[in-house]
Amino acid sequence: MDFNEFRSFGNGAIDLLIRYLQTIRERDVLPSTEPRSIIHTLPDEMPEHAEHWQHILNDLENILIPALTHWQSPHFHAFYPSSSSMGSIIGELLIAGIGVLGFNWASSPACTELEMVVLDWLVKFLQLPQHFKHSTEGPGGGVIQGSASEAVLVSVIAAREQMVRRIKSEHPEMSESDIRGKLVGYASDQSNSCVEKAGKLAAIPIKLLPTKEDCVLRAEELIAALKEDLSSGRIPTICIATLGTTGTCAYDDITALASICQRYKIWLHVDAAYAGAALALDEYNHLRQGLDNIDSLNINLHKLLLVNYDCAVLWLKDASKLVKAFQVNRIYLQNNQKLDNELPDFRNWQISLGRRFRALKAWIAFRSVGAEGLRMSLRKHIELSERFEKYVLADNRFELVAKRTLGIVCFRVKGDNELTTQLLQRILENKKLYMVQAVQGEKLFLRFVICGMDTKTEDIDFAWYEIRTKLTELFEKLGEPECKERKNKIYVEAISKQISFNLHDGNVLSISEKSK
Amino acid sequence: MDFNEFRSFGNGAIDLLIRYLQTIRERDVLPSTEPRSIIHTLPDEMPEHAEHWQHILNDLENILIPALTHWQSPHFHAFYPSSSSMGSIIGELLIAGIGVLGFNWASSPACTELEMVVLDWLVKFLQLPQHFKHSTEGPGGGVIQGSASEAVLVSVIAAREQMVRRIKSEHPEMSESDIRGKLVGYASDQSNSCVEKAGKLAAIPIKLLPTKEDCVLRAEELIAALKEDLSSGRIPTICIATLGTTGTCAYDDITALASICQRYKIWLHVDAAYAGAALALDEYNHLRQGLDNIDSLNINLHKLLLVNYDCAVLWLKDASKLVKAFQVNRIYLQNNQKLDNELPDFRNWQISLGRRFRALKAWIAFRSVGAEGLRMSLRKHIELSERFEKYVLADNRFELVAKRTLGIVCFRVKGDNELTTQLLQRILENKKLYMVQAVQGEKLFLRFVICGMDTKTEDIDFAWYEIRTKLTELFEKLGEPECKERKNKIYVEAISKQISFNLHDGNVLSISEKSK
Repeated sequence: MDFNEFRSFGNGAIDLLIRYLQTIRERDVLPSTEPRSIIHTLPDEMPEHAEHWQHILNDLENILIPALTHWQSPHFHAFYPSSSSMGSIIGELLIAGIGVLGFNWASSPACTELEMVVLDWLVKFLQLPQHFKHSTEGPGGGVIQGSASEAVLVSVIAAREQMVRRIKSEHPEMSESDIRGKLVGYASDQSNSCVEKAGKLAAIPIKLLPTKEDCVLRAEELIAALKEDLSSGRIPTICIATLGTTGTCAYDDITALASICQRYKIWLHVDAAYAGAALALDEYNHLRQGLDNIDSLNINLHKLLLVNYDCAVLWLKDASKLVKAFQVNRIYLQNNQKLDNELPDFRNWQISLGRRFRALKAWIAFRSVGAEGLRMSLRKHIELSERFEKYVLADNRFELVAKRTLGIVCFRVKGDNELTTQLLQRILENKKLYMVQAVQGEKLFLRFVICGMDTKTEDIDFAWYEIRTKLTELFEKLGEPECKERKNKIYVEAISKQISFNLHDGNVLSISEKSK
Repeated sequence: MDFNEFRSFGNGAIDLLIRYLQTIRERDVLPSTEPRSIIHTLPDEMPEHAEHWQHILNDLENILIPALTHWQSPHFHAFYPSSSSMGSIIGELLIAGIGVLGFNWASSPACTELEMVVLDWLVKFLQLPQHFKHSTEGPGGGVIQGSASEAVLVSVIAAREQMVRRIKSEHPEMSESDIRGKLVGYASDQSNSCVEKAGKLAAIPIKLLPTKEDCVLRAEELIAALKEDLSSGRIPTICIATLGTTGTCAYDDITALASICQRYKIWLHVDAAYAGAALALDEYNHLRQGLDNIDSLNINLHKLLLVNYDCAVLWLKDASKLVKAFQVNRIYLQNNQKLDNELPDFRNWQISLGRRFRALKAWIAFRSVGAEGLRMSLRKHIELSERFEKYVLADNRFELVAKRTLGIVCFRVKGDNELTTQLLQRILENKKLYMVQAVQGEKLFLRFVICGMDTKTEDIDFAWYEIRTKLTELFEKLGEPECKERKNKIYVEAISKQISFNLHDGNVLSISEKSK
């Protein structure tokens, strides 16, 4: 392929993306793909000869794209947003085309320095503690990881190694394996699955402490667990708190947890993968409480900050602790010795040796939208979820299971869990909306999350129409003799409330009229 | 930014890449960047308002690109190739633009299935054991990881957890922490730094066993280490062998190591990050010996197989062992139960929950060049290094420190290590070539690796001209009174050989004539 063909291929790919993104709203968000259908459609060996790019793009468009779940669709409301922006997409192209690796300063100086600059921009934009900046004195700084999973694992390992070193120096008579066998960490039962996974991978049990109905991890639970473990000879090592839990976007009590972790000298990591972005907004200032006193923090730029996956930032108050745990030297990896004290070797801040020039896509994304654009995007995200919340509150067949925060609305059908499960099943079978269920105590509920690259108010109205229509159908089915009596009360209440809701909201009424 | 602007931005970015790649040969491969110059040049906060894409691309071209070490330059001969191809670059654009995550089948069916298809293509192309195919019966299969570091760490953790389970079932009286404290792994002292790092991160010591001058790990060393550890109550868990060591591209004796690992029931992982690609060539058939009997294997597509970083494949003989170690379930992550037995949830095959649609860039790259193109690219890589080897052999100031294999030539200036170090320093100061040094026993040497997207024979001639010119300059300097005597013998030998070499090689002669 020569450069002219490369240009045509590239321009053709951009056009394909435009066609895809322009029509994404019209596609079912969930594909009608039978398991193994792609496997059966594609040839079972590599072509011997080169194929023309147009042929490849056609197959992408006609075979693969229809078999995707469309994460950028405005009808995708599952998991978390996987944010993206046009600047970030072009950034990824440029990263690949330039094709450098930046594992230390010398391996591509602009990689290391741009990462330092962009992450310092974010500290200012999010009003994070100054000691997280590379440009302030002291051993703190930020680094881009691939995911929150990586950031949490890296923090757990750094905390583990710090504790092994400390105990070994205080108790030289203890063997290292003896120390390792006693280490223990903590998080809440609402923490993301990656926290439990980090514990498994790092071979340090992470106890999932119980939370009350509000899903918040508070000081009492941590103190109780610490005391119990200390009395049985275990060594508390790290607490992973969450700002914005996966289930209901609850915020752990960072201030109180930080004070305990300082008293007991254990590492406090805060997983703010999703909600951390809200720190850009003055109205979310309260989330900042306690962050001055934590050891590390991760915020995914690929959730709400318009940089496409993968771009998860990990900030450390003292990165030298991380470097001590991760550093492995080889002569071929040596930087100029003088530099080592000045500029970070990011290979020692992460699992892999190699690293893509991910700072470039963040830099391009941020410049393409500006601080103003980022804040506007966050506020729109919140407004859309408020709109959805109003719909839920106005329909008394449903109940919220948690206070709405940011872009996540947690709701369920009143009554048995089975109703919520069946509702979700109907919705998923229709493929127009994608949500996932979660559980709080005994209650199953649905998480409605604002996602997609360009979600608008009418998409929220569409979603609500789909949800209530499917519930009405479900209730109609359940209204058959065998079910009627049990469900009757809820059903009647729901219908009457729904009617008055329709009368008061022109928008929804117009959707239901359109559907006739 | 609207779609029209996105198109202009994208086309502008493609044009920038073409300008960059077309002129990359003319740039110094190493930048003339003072530490912190980028930090001082760029603004210290995010712009408040959106900026025009043209402005951003200008800054990339004028500020950042000059501060890169150019990994795709034909004058880059350091570390390893970071392979790339036009198809793969466009693939990365498409991955970002489509913006899906494929952590289980339902989260985007085409992601999982395309990965299975493309990795099965590779099993066939590289003639790997059939049990590594997803499409054969049994629990084997491949998965794309970000890097060899990740692939090795994942294998170490899977081996560790398998061993803990086994010992616990055989010796229920032992505590889990007691078992963990006794685990030990093995690799050679020539293994990549990521092996030692994996041991640190997974908290299992990896002993770096001594190799002889040929850098090969053989059965004797492993048996000796195993016996010693078993007699002192340790639990041998994993051996990480290397096909193509980082220093000299040596090949460990896989057949013999596999037979021992089977006898002692320990996991055998093979790190073939670089050299694994050679399995595509019949003339490298001997490298395949023993691979039928290993537990896992990693080959980086981003080293020699034209897929840009990050794309490292890990194959497992029994992936269920990995899943057991990595699986953490949450209700919101559940696939359809029936599917679990049929199609892999790749989230349980890796560290992170999220994953990019990396199979797409491999699929596009492979179709764009075809199997034929991949083999041609590998053979060209080897021919170029053979050309360089001839130059080294013909100049008796230099010596090879290892047999050339694939695209790596390991050579040094005869005599004290200091000569080689000073030669490298001169070369790096001139910024026209990039190599790194390595060490074997007491000997420092230079690794000349074929890298770059479009390296040609004249680039090898250029490199050789630069190297011998710098050595001549060094010898001239050392010829001054204080050094003359010590170096005289080597110097005279070298010069006389150099002249006859020039006379016999028109190509080099013409370069040295051109330079007059």
